[in-house]
Amino acid sequence: MPYNLNISTMLERAETLYPKKQIVSRTLDQIHRLTYREVGERTRRLSSALKSLGVEKGDRVGTIGSNHHRHLEAYFAIPGLGAIVHTINIKFSSRHLVNMINHAEDKVLLVDEEMLPQIEKIKDQLPKVKAYIVMSDSKKLPDSTLNPLFSYEGLLEGGDGNFQFVKDLDEYSPAGLCYTFSSSGTLKGVVYTHRGVVLHSLVVGLGETLALTEADVCMPIVPMFHVNAWGLPYAATWFGTTQVLPGPNFTPEILADLMSKERVTVAASVPTVWLGLLMVLEKGLHDATSLRAAISGGSAVPVSLIAAYDKLGIPLCQAYGMTETTPLVTVSRLKSYQEELPVEERIMFRAKQGILAPGLEMKIVGPQGKVLWDGQERGELLLRGPWVAGEYYRDDDSNGVFKDGWLHTGDIASIDEEGFIQLMDRTKDLIKSGGEWISPVELENAILELEGVLEVAVVAVPSQEWGERPVACVVLKDGYRDQLKQKDILEPIAEKFPDWWLPDEVLFMDELPRTIAGKFLKAKLKEQVIKYLNR
Amino acid sequence: MPYNLNISTMLERAETLYPKKQIVSRTLDQIHRLTYREVGERTRRLSSALKSLGVEKGDRVGTIGSNHHRHLEAYFAIPGLGAIVHTINIKFSSRHLVNMINHAEDKVLLVDEEMLPQIEKIKDQLPKVKAYIVMSDSKKLPDSTLNPLFSYEGLLEGGDGNFQFVKDLDEYSPAGLCYTFSSSGTLKGVVYTHRGVVLHSLVVGLGETLALTEADVCMPIVPMFHVNAWGLPYAATWFGTTQVLPGPNFTPEILADLMSKERVTVAASVPTVWLGLLMVLEKGLHDATSLRAAISGGSAVPVSLIAAYDKLGIPLCQAYGMTETTPLVTVSRLKSYQEELPVEERIMFRAKQGILAPGLEMKIVGPQGKVLWDGQERGELLLRGPWVAGEYYRDDDSNGVFKDGWLHTGDIASIDEEGFIQLMDRTKDLIKSGGEWISPVELENAILELEGVLEVAVVAVPSQEWGERPVACVVLKDGYRDQLKQKDILEPIAEKFPDWWLPDEVLFMDELPRTIAGKFLKAKLKEQVIKYLNR
Repeated sequence: MPYNLNISTMLERAETLYPKKQIVSRTLDQIHRLTYREVGERTRRLSSALKSLGVEKGDRVGTIGSNHHRHLEAYFAIPGLGAIVHTINIKFSSRHLVNMINHAEDKVLLVDEEMLPQIEKIKDQLPKVKAYIVMSDSKKLPDSTLNPLFSYEGLLEGGDGNFQFVKDLDEYSPAGLCYTFSSSGTLKGVVYTHRGVVLHSLVVGLGETLALTEADVCMPIVPMFHVNAWGLPYAATWFGTTQVLPGPNFTPEILADLMSKERVTVAASVPTVWLGLLMVLEKGLHDATSLRAAISGGSAVPVSLIAAYDKLGIPLCQAYGMTETTPLVTVSRLKSYQEELPVEERIMFRAKQGILAPGLEMKIVGPQGKVLWDGQERGELLLRGPWVAGEYYRDDDSNGVFKDGWLHTGDIASIDEEGFIQLMDRTKDLIKSGGEWISPVELENAILELEGVLEVAVVAVPSQEWGERPVACVVLKDGYRDQLKQKDILEPIAEKFPDWWLPDEVLFMDELPRTIAGKFLKAKLKEQVIKYLNR
Repeated sequence: MPYNLNISTMLERAETLYPKKQIVSRTLDQIHRLTYREVGERTRRLSSALKSLGVEKGDRVGTIGSNHHRHLEAYFAIPGLGAIVHTINIKFSSRHLVNMINHAEDKVLLVDEEMLPQIEKIKDQLPKVKAYIVMSDSKKLPDSTLNPLFSYEGLLEGGDGNFQFVKDLDEYSPAGLCYTFSSSGTLKGVVYTHRGVVLHSLVVGLGETLALTEADVCMPIVPMFHVNAWGLPYAATWFGTTQVLPGPNFTPEILADLMSKERVTVAASVPTVWLGLLMVLEKGLHDATSLRAAISGGSAVPVSLIAAYDKLGIPLCQAYGMTETTPLVTVSRLKSYQEELPVEERIMFRAKQGILAPGLEMKIVGPQGKVLWDGQERGELLLRGPWVAGEYYRDDDSNGVFKDGWLHTGDIASIDEEGFIQLMDRTKDLIKSGGEWISPVELENAILELEGVLEVAVVAVPSQEWGERPVACVVLKDGYRDQLKQKDILEPIAEKFPDWWLPDEVLFMDELPRTIAGKFLKAKLKEQVIKYLNR
C-alpha cells in the first residue's frame, strides 16, 4: 500500500514508546532535563504557534542556534507543519547570511539570544522575514531592534500541546534546507526530504554503521546547523535514545564534563574537536569510558589520533559524508575477519574513510575510467542513492556537480580490495605544480607524525614557474614552540615524497583559521600566506 | 533525486564488498560452501537462463524448495529480471497447490528433486506452467513426467555470469509473492515490492531490532517459503552476513550440529522447533554458546521456554509478524531501564510480543475504541507502514482485512504502559461460549506451567447449550504418560479462571498435528476432537 514516510512519525514514536527517556540540554543559564513526552508536547505547541504566525506548507523557517532542546523541537515542529527547517550557519559572513536568508525566502527566523546582534546588523536587508523568535530560557523579550520579535517560551505558552502534525505529505516533500559551499566553491542550498531523512535515520541505526539504539546516550557535538548534526537528532529521537545537547560556547572541558556525568556512549564531531578533547581526557580527570563510539567526520583523522584514543579505551570511528548526502556515506568499521589482523594493519584500515553504507551506490572515476580496487589508483568519487541530493535549491546551474544521475563529490579517492574508500583530497584543494598533482593531505599526514607537531595545513601559493607550489603551516605543541626549524619538518619527510612535492616554505603559526565546525579555513589561510610571503 | 529502491543492489553490495564471505548450504548430498562472489555469479546465470526460458518483467516464477543456496539465488535472480518470486508452501494440500499456482499463473516452477512427486501428481492441472526446473546437485535429469524439465545446474552452465539485473523498475514493482490463509480463513496472495523488501531489510539490521550485521552467522530455520524466511536471507545478503541454510528434512540434532560447527550467532524459528532444539542442547553435547539471538516467532513463547534457554546462556528473543507484514512488526527487546528490573519482571516483558518496529504505525481497537495502555484491555491490532500489504494479489474482496488504510490483523492484543504488545488470540481462534469470549491462549499458558506437560492446544467444540466449549488436548513429557488424569490438569488451574472458562474435557494425545512451520494445525485438531467426542 502506498505509504508516505513522514518525519513526524519519528517523534510520535518517542512520545508514545519512550515518554520517560530524556533530552539533556545545556543552555547559557542551566542544564535542562526534558522527557520525550515534554519535548513532544512543546514541539506541538511550537508548530501551532508557527501556524498562527502564518507559516504554511512549503514555507521556509530559518534557525540560528546552537545544539539545544529548542533547536531539536524546531527540527520536528517545522516539518510537522509541512514547512521546511532552514538551519543557518551563523559563522558565515553577514553578506552570506543575507544571501542565504533571502535566497531561501525565510518567513520566520528562530534566533538564539546571544546571536541577535548579528541578525540585527542585517535585518534591513531581509525583506521577506515576517517575524523573529528569540530562543532563550526567559519569556521576557530582550532589548532588540528586531520587529516583530516574539519569545520562544512565550509562544509555546499560547500554543496547542495537542496540535496534530500534517500527514498528507508526499514523502518527497522538502523538510530541511542547508546551505554549503559546493565543490564549485559557490554557496548552494541542499534540500532534505521527509523520505531522505527517514531512510538516513534507519541507516544510522544499522548495526553495520553507527548502531544507534535506545540504550545509547548520544551527544552530537557537530552543530545542528551542519547537515542536521549529521542526522543524529532525528535518528536518536526515533529510537528513544537519550540525547545530550552541549549548547553554545562549549570548551573541551565542558564536553568532557558532560560526557562523564551523563555517561555518553556515542558522540560525533570533527578531528580538531576530538584533538582538543584528547588533551583534556589525557589528564585523567574525566571518566569517558562509557563512550563506545567517538565518531569523527568532516576531514581525515590522523592515525596518531586513533591510536591515542585507543590508549584511553575509546574507539574513534571515522565516517564520511557531505551536506549533499544527508550526510552518511561511509563508516570505517572493520569487517569481522579484519579483526584478526595485527593492530598496525587494523589501524590503517580504520584511518580510511570506510565502507559504503547499505543503500548507496558509488563509483570512482579517474582519467582512465573506473579505478581499480587496489588502494592506489585515484579518481573522483561519484554517489547516488535515496539520501543523496539530485540538485541544488532553486538553482539551475549545478556547475557539473549533478550529472548523469550521479553526484560528483569533488573528492578524490582510492578504494582498496576490501572496499575501503580513502579520500585523498578535494579536487579543488589539490595543488597543481608543473602540470602534476600534489596532495596536501598526504603531506599533512606525514608532517603530523613528527614529534612536536600539533596541527598542520598545506596550502597552494601561486608560482610563476610551476603554477602552484605547496607551503606548510605548522602549529607546534606547547614545549616545542620555537624549538623546531623548517629543516626539522622537511628532512624527516623527504624520503616519502618526490623532491618537487616538498613544501617551498614551512611557516610556524600560533593557530590556524577554522570554521565553526572545526575545519581549517584553507582559503583564508592561503590568503594570509600569500600576503605574508608577498607572492 | 528520485531513486528507486531495488533488490538487486543488495546482492551487488555483497558481491563487491563481501566477495569472500560464505553461504553454507546443506543439501541431501553434502554441505556446500559458496562465497558471495560465487553466489552472485550463479544468480546472474540463473537470471539469464530464466530470461532464455521466456520469463519477462512482471511474470511469476514459483519456487518449491527448502532452505539452500539455490533457493537464495532464486530470491535475487527472479526479481533481478523484474519478475516475481512466488515461494510455495509444499505442505499445502494438492488442491491448494493447484489453486495457488494457477491463481499466480506461474510461468516456470523451480522444484527441489525430493518434491517432484507432489508436483507430478498435479501437473495436468497446471496449464500455465511452461517449464520445470529441478533443483539438485546433479546436472543429470531425474526420471520424471514433468515436461519440459531442466536441471538447475545445467541451466546455470549455459547462463551468463555477467548478466546485468534490470534497473528501470519503479520501487513499488512486485518482487515476491506468498500465499497465506488470511484472518478470514481463505487462501490469499501477498505481494512484496522491491521497496518493501529493502525497507524491511534495513529494519532487520537496526540495533533496535535484530541488529543483523556482517559479523553475524545467520541461520534461518524458518522455511524460505514462509514470508521470505522472515526476510533474513535478503538482509543477511545485503550486510555480507555469513548464512547457514539448513536444507531439507533437518532434525533438531542436525540443527544443533550446524549451530555448533558454524558458530551460528542468529537463528530464527517457531517455538516448537526451539523446544525440540532445547531437548538436544540440554544434553550438553553441542556448543551453541555462539548464539546471541534465538529469534522465535509464529506463536507465543511460554515463559518456561525463555527461562530454559536463559539457563543455557542463550537469549531467546520473541518477534511477531505475519505474511501480510513482510513480516517484522514487533521485537521483544527490553528497554535500557528495564534491564534493571528483577529477573521475574524482565521475563514477563520478554514473554510479550514486544515493541513496534520503527517505521510502522499501530492501533489496538476494542469495542469501546482505542484500548488503554494498561496491559489489560483488549482489541484487534491494526497496522500500517511501508512494509505492510494494502491488498491481496488479484483479489477484490479482502473480507475486511484491509479497511480505511489499515491492515486488520485479526489478532487480539493488549498493550502495557511500556508499549509492549501482547497477543491474546487470533479473533478466529477465540471461543465464544454463552456469548462471552474464552481465550484458548490463556488456558494453554496456564496448563503449560504444570509439571509433566510438554504441549497443549485448546480448541473449541460445538455445544448446543453454549454455542462453543473449550477442550484441552495435552501431550505429556516422557515419564509422565498415563500418570496424569483430567483432574490433575483442571484442578491446579481452576482458581485462575471463571468456572465456565475451564475445558469440558482434557484429552491426552501422543502428538498434535502441525504445519511445516511448526504451528499447531488447530483446525485439523478440532476436527479430530469433534469426531472423537462425537459432538
